[in-house]
Amino acid sequence: MAVNLLPPDPKSLLSVLGVELAVAKAGIRKLDRKDLLVMRLAPGAAVAGVFTQNRFCAAPVILAKKHLRNPVRALVINTGNANAGTGKDGLIRALSVCTSLSSLIKCKPTQVLPFSTGVIMEALPADRIVAGLSKAEACGWASAAEAIMTTDTVPKAFSRKIKLSTGEAVVTGIAKGAGMIKPDMATMLGFVATDAVVSRNNLQTMVKRAADRSFNCITVDGDTSTNDSFMLIATGMGVAASSKRDLSLLEGAITQVSQQLAQAIVRDGEGATKFVTVTVERGRSEAECRRIAYAIAHSPLVKTAFFASDPNLGRILAAVGYSGANVDVSRISLYLDEVLVAAKGGRHPAYRDEQGVAAMRKPEFTVRVVLNAGKAAATIWTCDLSFDYVKINAEYRT
Amino acid sequence: MAVNLLPPDPKSLLSVLGVELAVAKAGIRKLDRKDLLVMRLAPGAAVAGVFTQNRFCAAPVILAKKHLRNPVRALVINTGNANAGTGKDGLIRALSVCTSLSSLIKCKPTQVLPFSTGVIMEALPADRIVAGLSKAEACGWASAAEAIMTTDTVPKAFSRKIKLSTGEAVVTGIAKGAGMIKPDMATMLGFVATDAVVSRNNLQTMVKRAADRSFNCITVDGDTSTNDSFMLIATGMGVAASSKRDLSLLEGAITQVSQQLAQAIVRDGEGATKFVTVTVERGRSEAECRRIAYAIAHSPLVKTAFFASDPNLGRILAAVGYSGANVDVSRISLYLDEVLVAAKGGRHPAYRDEQGVAAMRKPEFTVRVVLNAGKAAATIWTCDLSFDYVKINAEYRT
Repeated sequence: MAVNLLPPDPKSLLSVLGVELAVAKAGIRKLDRKDLLVMRLAPGAAVAGVFTQNRFCAAPVILAKKHLRNPVRALVINTGNANAGTGKDGLIRALSVCTSLSSLIKCKPTQVLPFSTGVIMEALPADRIVAGLSKAEACGWASAAEAIMTTDTVPKAFSRKIKLSTGEAVVTGIAKGAGMIKPDMATMLGFVATDAVVSRNNLQTMVKRAADRSFNCITVDGDTSTNDSFMLIATGMGVAASSKRDLSLLEGAITQVSQQLAQAIVRDGEGATKFVTVTVERGRSEAECRRIAYAIAHSPLVKTAFFASDPNLGRILAAVGYSGANVDVSRISLYLDEVLVAAKGGRHPAYRDEQGVAAMRKPEFTVRVVLNAGKAAATIWTCDLSFDYVKINAEYRT
Repeated sequence: MAVNLLPPDPKSLLSVLGVELAVAKAGIRKLDRKDLLVMRLAPGAAVAGVFTQNRFCAAPVILAKKHLRNPVRALVINTGNANAGTGKDGLIRALSVCTSLSSLIKCKPTQVLPFSTGVIMEALPADRIVAGLSKAEACGWASAAEAIMTTDTVPKAFSRKIKLSTGEAVVTGIAKGAGMIKPDMATMLGFVATDAVVSRNNLQTMVKRAADRSFNCITVDGDTSTNDSFMLIATGMGVAASSKRDLSLLEGAITQVSQQLAQAIVRDGEGATKFVTVTVERGRSEAECRRIAYAIAHSPLVKTAFFASDPNLGRILAAVGYSGANVDVSRISLYLDEVLVAAKGGRHPAYRDEQGVAAMRKPEFTVRVVLNAGKAAATIWTCDLSFDYVKINAEYRT
């Protein structure tokens, strides 16, 4: 079902010196399924991250934020249970997983970052996770990407090499997510690692900027998760990135990997049959452009029209109109790929429905709104709303 | 498909002295279907209204707002075409319909209010509407309710008598709407008439207050229409309502009819199988409570869980958490009808899934969030998100 998204070729994924991966089948929710991932980091690795803005943030998010203050030695990620909406008991269970891993790898529990994804408001089966930790087996990034999937149909992993003044650095990342996707700081779960030497401060700046240009530009269903976390690791086992130019080059590579991961989440969005880029241009501010782009990308009417390849494009104008942005509708133009659909607040005389159908039948297309009011712009990536979205979410737990 | 909603019994609908109704089959979009309604008002009738806040408001909305300044003699409503996103040409076509009706009933074009509903961004077939006007036949409120339906499956009309100090007054109303429903001032189209004598100023106050407690408390899909209009007519052919107490009694009856109409729209929401009341209590402000209630009512994940009768209630907590309201999650309780599901930010120890399933299997139930932070409250009525919502909207034009 995923739109133009293939599983990663394991050979294309570059290993990152200083990151050791291991997975297990812990039987957290389903038997015989990889559901537990450990990422062990070399001493001295720097870690930075951004987390969900959902006020009901999950227990592991609370702990991971806290433990991030210490020198991090490992990340532990389970699927099948989000450990969210679980109150104090959830914190105790998440901490017990950290403690168990810390005794296996000889560090403090507060040097382990926990992450969970899956069903909300059910107790985390910490005993099964702890049992799984001791039988985890070493693996590569492709297996790691598989181990963090929930309703994802395709594992998501990308790599890139970047030439700095000091030598070559590697950037490799994995992510998961298909539903409850409207990241407010980060995606459901995303992990990007580089072997470069980067200071903690520079890393925190990079993770925020990369998130803003990748995971914070996607939406599947407008639901911001309780567990969103995006972590950036610099193991420091490779070349140094400290000059302004090197930092900028490295940030570029990290952003590209993050965008590939973020777009992969949309391509694999629950029930998705179309990958749609929504661009709003020539607005007065980026915030205004984003607001309009999200109104379009969240409208169930627009999304079902995408699904039907029906250029019922008045629905897009209606979404622009109710977005809350203070727009002058008489100046707005609307394009579908290169086709001018509407201008000056109404249908363009030369536009014919067949043109719209032809554009929308493609598995990927762009909706472009030109406000003609300023110089700002924003782009959001989204997908359609299909029968399968309802099916997947109506049957998720059963 | 509508949830606990039957077509109105014509005998239950009280005629309103001073309102003459007529319908026609004008063939606007489909042949052999009532699609045109004329409401002719007695001289001296007072009319007040509220309109969509969508910036892409339709041509008839622009004209109706303007003509409302004059003594109104008729309303003309067509389905099949919304005359929205049609620019200046749309205004010309809407005005030509007013002109044609005005010459038939001997008044000025600016004394006619036009309303349109249907597909957006297509040219209004004004010639067919004009031809339909001359063959319109007198009818009652039940037929009038039928004539304004689009994707509605059940006509919506309610009546009520209210005893004032001066005698008895009648209130009768009709509405249409099933999709693109998240009224920002009013519903898609709603018309309520009373025979009472009410001043224009009092009527305008009443229509705003009644809308705020009825049409402005519902959502089907979160899409605010370009054509929302809610009109309140007082023909002045009956008893007077001028004392404070009479005005309050009359407003009560008008609000009740408006709430019945608004709830009927949700019961007949596109693809709806459940009618859900979302109540948020003990918040710090009504705005905060409404924000949370709408976040729950708009979440596709919550709505598909309603459809599945799956008490995947963490999705509700997640929606509370990302609503943007500044809530203390450790104080929140969540009820499904009378069942306490969550308290203090986590699942209540006594809660069992079977209780949630039992509540959600019913065609009507209440989601109640208690914030324990203040004295304000808000209630929103909504429906579930089913396969049929996608089907209806993917196939709407074809």
